[in-house]
Amino acid sequence: MNYKFFLGIGVAVAIVFAGVAVYNGFEKHAPANSAERDTLYQVSTTGALMQGVYDGDVTVGDLKKHGDFGIGTFNRLDGEMIVLDGQVWQAKSDGTVSPAMDNQTTPFATVTYFDTDIRQTTSDRAMNYSEFSTVMAAQLPSQNMIYAVEIHGTFPSVTVRAIPAQEQPYPNLTVASKEQRVYTFTNITGTVVGFYTPTFLKDLDTQGYHLHFLADDHQRGGHILDMTVPADSTVQYDVTPYFTMALPTSGAFVGTNLTADMSAALAAVEQ
Amino acid sequence: MNYKFFLGIGVAVAIVFAGVAVYNGFEKHAPANSAERDTLYQVSTTGALMQGVYDGDVTVGDLKKHGDFGIGTFNRLDGEMIVLDGQVWQAKSDGTVSPAMDNQTTPFATVTYFDTDIRQTTSDRAMNYSEFSTVMAAQLPSQNMIYAVEIHGTFPSVTVRAIPAQEQPYPNLTVASKEQRVYTFTNITGTVVGFYTPTFLKDLDTQGYHLHFLADDHQRGGHILDMTVPADSTVQYDVTPYFTMALPTSGAFVGTNLTADMSAALAAVEQ
Repeated sequence: MNYKFFLGIGVAVAIVFAGVAVYNGFEKHAPANSAERDTLYQVSTTGALMQGVYDGDVTVGDLKKHGDFGIGTFNRLDGEMIVLDGQVWQAKSDGTVSPAMDNQTTPFATVTYFDTDIRQTTSDRAMNYSEFSTVMAAQLPSQNMIYAVEIHGTFPSVTVRAIPAQEQPYPNLTVASKEQRVYTFTNITGTVVGFYTPTFLKDLDTQGYHLHFLADDHQRGGHILDMTVPADSTVQYDVTPYFTMALPTSGAFVGTNLTADMSAALAAVEQ
Repeated sequence: MNYKFFLGIGVAVAIVFAGVAVYNGFEKHAPANSAERDTLYQVSTTGALMQGVYDGDVTVGDLKKHGDFGIGTFNRLDGEMIVLDGQVWQAKSDGTVSPAMDNQTTPFATVTYFDTDIRQTTSDRAMNYSEFSTVMAAQLPSQNMIYAVEIHGTFPSVTVRAIPAQEQPYPNLTVASKEQRVYTFTNITGTVVGFYTPTFLKDLDTQGYHLHFLADDHQRGGHILDMTVPADSTVQYDVTPYFTMALPTSGAFVGTNLTADMSAALAAVEQ
């Protein structure tokens, strides 16, 4: 290994980080209330979802006690969840979006309370999702932090997917995703909602950016497969140094073999 | 892959699990107070520790707000932490054990509030650490759960290590551990304190059992490298379905490259 290279990267990151150390989210020894707001609260793991653990474990009502912003899916993998401004929305594979009821359940979701810590402006040219991920990840103050990510704007193009509800015995996510329905919206105004998570959470979460979309009209949305981010867009980040995960204590999770590294398979499904 | 095999394992685990589903720790929708007590609270990650991130990030005083039982290390990797009955002890490489002060800091620690959910009796013959790990892990109601682990007894043999405080620039843990001092205690009465964590936490924690020792006389202890567990010992488990991790927001953690899989190297250091 080239330690000098890593040292160089480390110094470079440290310098970038020093530049943003004044942001509120990087305050240390935050009071309990702040710690609660700065927690990514997660139901189960993406590894379990990959293996077909789709039965809802936590209610939407319970989930809302842990955040007002986030993403996930629903019982039986029935569509994509978007949580924005405390409202939970369900984007189904039939193309509809509707408010989720508090008694619906989720097998996987990630939420936090969104407080803007960092605002960054994208470059002076439009970017697709892949370019956005590479360019913007490099501008994060640390690759080893969790960030909630929000972009509001009018997008030339957003391509989303949603997977239909699955039946027992559940196929794994690679198989289930073959049934996904894909929709492309053009010149659509709405909000990109999601998270950036570091590589060391790869067994629990989608690595890097995992983003969903909700149109301002609340009629269109889903899991983002691709998008065109306009030039000079504002990306808002909420630095989220606490990570809380609730592991299911019953159901298929308990007995499923979760020892395999599913991160590569997950990346193939999620992008 | 042999799916029938996995299905068979799943059914077998499900049957074992059904047999213990009455244990308190597997109750779902626990009240908030119970969720707090059933949380493994962790400072930083073992991956960062492996890369030499040894500067303390959280005080012992803060750590004690999140549990009365656990393990860890101290600022500059100065010895092994044992938290038992709300007291924090520091086992140093010079062989001494002393109470830790609230203003000392830790770069890595894991604590919870210990409430016994499961009691298991070991077999009718003594086991070493390796046998114990294999035999007892197979008897857990689920491999996908976090358990706090406590064994009190008189042990024919316990071999522990402690690493001396490191100096900047810090070597990685593989290098630092070469300076470890090893002590073997015979016919010693004390408590084994630690955790079992599932494979999917391997980037954040030591896989499987990670156990420290504290003698009843509070004079001897450390990170367990080997031990002889007497026949018919009682192992107490606290089922811990919530996992909360506090990521450092300053210091070396921020700029360290944490993308490598250090779990194999960690296992080599920890055993």
